[in-house]
Amino acid sequence: MEYQFSERIKTIKASAIREIFKLTADPAVISFAAGNPSPDAFPVEAVRQITADILKNEPVEALQYNITEGYLPLRNYVKETLLPAIGSFNPERDDAIIVTGGQQGIDLTCKVLCNEGDTVLCENPSFVGALNAIKAYNTNLVGIDLDGDGVNLEQLEKALKTEKNVKIFYTIPTFQNPSGITATLEKRKAVYELCKKYGVLILEDNPYGALRFEGEDVPTIKSLDTDGIVIYAGSFSKVLSPGIRVGFLSLPKEICAKVVVAKQVNDVHTNILAQMIAYNFVTKYDFDAHLERLRALYRRKCAFMLEQMDKYFDPRVTFTRPQGGLFLWATLPEDVDMMQFTRDAVAKKVAVVPGSAFLPHEETMISHSFRLNFSMPSEEQIETGIKILGEMTHAL
Amino acid sequence: MEYQFSERIKTIKASAIREIFKLTADPAVISFAAGNPSPDAFPVEAVRQITADILKNEPVEALQYNITEGYLPLRNYVKETLLPAIGSFNPERDDAIIVTGGQQGIDLTCKVLCNEGDTVLCENPSFVGALNAIKAYNTNLVGIDLDGDGVNLEQLEKALKTEKNVKIFYTIPTFQNPSGITATLEKRKAVYELCKKYGVLILEDNPYGALRFEGEDVPTIKSLDTDGIVIYAGSFSKVLSPGIRVGFLSLPKEICAKVVVAKQVNDVHTNILAQMIAYNFVTKYDFDAHLERLRALYRRKCAFMLEQMDKYFDPRVTFTRPQGGLFLWATLPEDVDMMQFTRDAVAKKVAVVPGSAFLPHEETMISHSFRLNFSMPSEEQIETGIKILGEMTHAL
Repeated sequence: MEYQFSERIKTIKASAIREIFKLTADPAVISFAAGNPSPDAFPVEAVRQITADILKNEPVEALQYNITEGYLPLRNYVKETLLPAIGSFNPERDDAIIVTGGQQGIDLTCKVLCNEGDTVLCENPSFVGALNAIKAYNTNLVGIDLDGDGVNLEQLEKALKTEKNVKIFYTIPTFQNPSGITATLEKRKAVYELCKKYGVLILEDNPYGALRFEGEDVPTIKSLDTDGIVIYAGSFSKVLSPGIRVGFLSLPKEICAKVVVAKQVNDVHTNILAQMIAYNFVTKYDFDAHLERLRALYRRKCAFMLEQMDKYFDPRVTFTRPQGGLFLWATLPEDVDMMQFTRDAVAKKVAVVPGSAFLPHEETMISHSFRLNFSMPSEEQIETGIKILGEMTHAL
Repeated sequence: MEYQFSERIKTIKASAIREIFKLTADPAVISFAAGNPSPDAFPVEAVRQITADILKNEPVEALQYNITEGYLPLRNYVKETLLPAIGSFNPERDDAIIVTGGQQGIDLTCKVLCNEGDTVLCENPSFVGALNAIKAYNTNLVGIDLDGDGVNLEQLEKALKTEKNVKIFYTIPTFQNPSGITATLEKRKAVYELCKKYGVLILEDNPYGALRFEGEDVPTIKSLDTDGIVIYAGSFSKVLSPGIRVGFLSLPKEICAKVVVAKQVNDVHTNILAQMIAYNFVTKYDFDAHLERLRALYRRKCAFMLEQMDKYFDPRVTFTRPQGGLFLWATLPEDVDMMQFTRDAVAKKVAVVPGSAFLPHEETMISHSFRLNFSMPSEEQIETGIKILGEMTHAL
């Protein structure tokens, strides 16, 4: 039989990153391609103890069906402690729902808000998983270039004004994936005002916010939300474990009610044992001390990678110096074929993600950049891998 | 701000069952409304030991990202052992993917196959979670009446012939939810041939198949699939734990590749610790003995509920006598207002699910039936609750 697939699934393809992730199963490859936390970042002993306690004291609750909105104690913690600490929850207006990782939060937001043909704005470049989730609703995805201090406001206003049925501006203002850029407070305020002016909702994705290892926190866009136009997506993936797939949304109650319905038909509810593990970890262990440990780890690794890049890279190659998160973003001279560079790197057993993977429309746009991850590789791998890439940059 | 929601989300509403589930939080209510396994059905001690071992021996694998297709050992077990045992996997043609519960398998199947306006056929009545997942793709959902031996073939052929762009026939042939009906082999063959004739894929949902406590197994439709037209959805929810959200699809490789892409943007991958728990349970413990224990438990509970219904119900009320699964389906005389009956029952602290919740189009169709679950309540609750319902039937 010849199968007929939906139009929506034809618009997206397997993530280039996850395909590269498969190549890097070869242990001889030094991978700077992942988006994974460091294997040293997991609070293994705490998770072991917590899980044993849950399965001893509340086994039936951990294994039985639960409600779609999420495990109540975790949801209450998110609403009453985690989100208020960053000014990202207004108890009169907002609600929160636990989702199966930040990825599901993005998917469900589009599911309840976008009809086919509606426009969604995103940063260019941006997180490929989100872009594909948005495209899968047959939306008109429009990229807005990133400047060093956040999104380009002129381009943003032009798109808000001219694109049809703009429903969402999707943004990662803090330690952006892939660029590592953090939008300034001024930029955030301007973005908020523009979206408000044009009646467009902001989807603020903040998986890395707690991983600041340098400088001062910048308020979330959600914390500026006096008008109920911001949907905030958070996650335990980078601060506890990505394998457990637990994230959350903070959003106006009316939108949350729709997301609950959409989630119910997607996966009924998020794995309940995972939600119980997250809840017990953040409330019964010293979560702040754990975060400090992660920050110290990533501060050291990022600084070390930058040091090696300063030492080995040809100065014609520029790169960002992030204050947090997991990624660096390097840009080659304009006359260099970036795809060929990344293919040559893989041949030399070093994997990076080609910047084209982060373009809203890979087929019509060009990137001269590539993404480097510093959380996964060891310092020895960083030194060896950056040296190999550095030699390649001098040969360009 | 006045929020604009997508058309798709307007077409579905919160599951009546899950709403009733909230009402039944009142411990004074005897609930026959759930679809949950018995709390006595969970292999708690095994899960405790398995989880401790995983977190001792492979903690990083359990907490880190993994691939979208699923935890490789579990996926291989599904392909090499579980599915071949029921003739539901053809290694040359099929592939399998682990999904976040059977619900996600249904959602992803529609996501990759259906455009807006395409037709999906389903049984009438059918599982409300599936119906809502299908409707959320703005499809034309058409119900085919169930006879005692499976779906009505004349109606099925008429719909296959006359509805436009029919893509999928969604069916639960074994211990159907909500009716408890099992389609005969003859019926399955006829359904297969009809769908083949009209070039329509079959989505065979089989969450209860292993829970046969009486009679002989009937071959799955997938086991008849010589033409690559059947997508088979299985689940560990009813045989291990629903809270862990682990299910799987067996389907032609070409369709599976698309489902992988669709799942990647939905939730990246299914909770990995949960997949490891499922794998270790089915391979290192006596899974067959566990299933035998579940069958004995449900055989006893179903028989007890039927005994009470025979004793207390007015003979004008008819009901199915399932050979497995979790549900009974009772039908009131046609002159009775079923919704009023179920409301009156809740007032008397007994909850059942009104049959209208299982109609493809609740707004234009009528049901005289209601669903009773026998896995969750205790024998004491069954006796008390059925007696109350029985008294109500005599007063009709």
